[in-house]
Amino acid sequence: MLQIIPIPDLPIFQPNDDIAQIISEKYADNLKNNDILVIAHTIVSRVENCEIEYEKVQPSMFAVNFANSAEKDPRIVEIVLQEAKSIVRMSESLLITETHHGFICANSGVDRSNARPGHVLTLPKDPDKSARKIKKRFEEINGLNNINIIISDTFGRPFRIGTTNIAIGIAGLDPYVDCSFKRDLFGYKLQHSIVAVADELACTAGLIMGQSNEGIPVVIIRGFTNYTSSSQSSATRLNRKREDALFW
Amino acid sequence: MLQIIPIPDLPIFQPNDDIAQIISEKYADNLKNNDILVIAHTIVSRVENCEIEYEKVQPSMFAVNFANSAEKDPRIVEIVLQEAKSIVRMSESLLITETHHGFICANSGVDRSNARPGHVLTLPKDPDKSARKIKKRFEEINGLNNINIIISDTFGRPFRIGTTNIAIGIAGLDPYVDCSFKRDLFGYKLQHSIVAVADELACTAGLIMGQSNEGIPVVIIRGFTNYTSSSQSSATRLNRKREDALFW
Repeated sequence: MLQIIPIPDLPIFQPNDDIAQIISEKYADNLKNNDILVIAHTIVSRVENCEIEYEKVQPSMFAVNFANSAEKDPRIVEIVLQEAKSIVRMSESLLITETHHGFICANSGVDRSNARPGHVLTLPKDPDKSARKIKKRFEEINGLNNINIIISDTFGRPFRIGTTNIAIGIAGLDPYVDCSFKRDLFGYKLQHSIVAVADELACTAGLIMGQSNEGIPVVIIRGFTNYTSSSQSSATRLNRKREDALFW
Repeated sequence: MLQIIPIPDLPIFQPNDDIAQIISEKYADNLKNNDILVIAHTIVSRVENCEIEYEKVQPSMFAVNFANSAEKDPRIVEIVLQEAKSIVRMSESLLITETHHGFICANSGVDRSNARPGHVLTLPKDPDKSARKIKKRFEEINGLNNINIIISDTFGRPFRIGTTNIAIGIAGLDPYVDCSFKRDLFGYKLQHSIVAVADELACTAGLIMGQSNEGIPVVIIRGFTNYTSSSQSSATRLNRKREDALFW
């Protein structure tokens, strides 16, 4: 059995806060080895000063033109463009970009939600590095040697309505499990053999994180062991390469 | 806290088996109201006779041509085409189709895995109807009035490596939760407000279902209440309409 444990009553995180320290103090029960902590990127972004005061941003003409048709703030559109490596699709009102990390999502992940008034939150610059740092601190503080971290965000999907949580930063575990050596019930070798286990873990946490002021930005998944450990793993390994993507 | 409970040691289901009866007998602990049962479509497909003996299928010339370039069995390709409403993308080796239900996936969901030798499994004809039927039986057998059912399959994603579990049939709950009335920590109205909660529930179950001969085709999710109840819901509501899909 898996347990999905919310950590409630966390404060609003501030720049340079020690996430592991604050969570370890608040969480009355003890963390255990092999726990997987899924952390909403919003708190990592806040701690890492990824808030931009958009009123100070000078939008380009391209940003102004799109903002007019989309009825958006041109200064926020400018930030979205600055966070983008490329534009994958745009309509009159939607901008789907490839971020500098290689994630494909709406508005480069730039969001007014959970940012201070007059600000937007961007994604962390290197969410894998953030995850590794948080993992190390949790282990130091709690005297453990195997805490796994997933930093998550909510992304839309090309062909399905609604968002789901995905993994944008990972430490301690591989983002997927390759089952290609396995056999089905009848001994037949599996065809669709790579399971994106980090995204499924993020979804699981997403069920109780919520999106709004519910204030559950950190969730513990306990009892899950069907992953491969890795000290070198990265969420960017989940990005399909442009040359392999039929839908780019 | 959520609990994710596997139901182990289930038999290989046979055509016309009563899924709810067999599970209720095997599951030592009692089901409870508000439990969500996620059921792998493979057992629903087997019970509903969605196995096709591909050796008896006569492939079309189109199927033969694609099968040659993709190094696939032309008779299985023919079944994939029969299960498709349209072809969304094809390369020399990959066929991404829109199924008659409106799901967009590889090979119309047709799979040799977990089918008898010489057979393939197709998706259930009407997974929502299957889910409603199973829900009703579970409630009758266990004397309950609110068991929720999700029938799941593993789908790939256009821009991310690996498969995740998704909901293809639903009974008892809406497939998504609309948070657009909610506010963030700073009172700002949420932008990305529709959460595909049925897909997140399917992912959660997917963590312990596995893909192969682990034999966990049914998972109970207990303690989750953040959904909207519905007697008329449908997994097809998660399908983005063609006119709204930037990536069709």
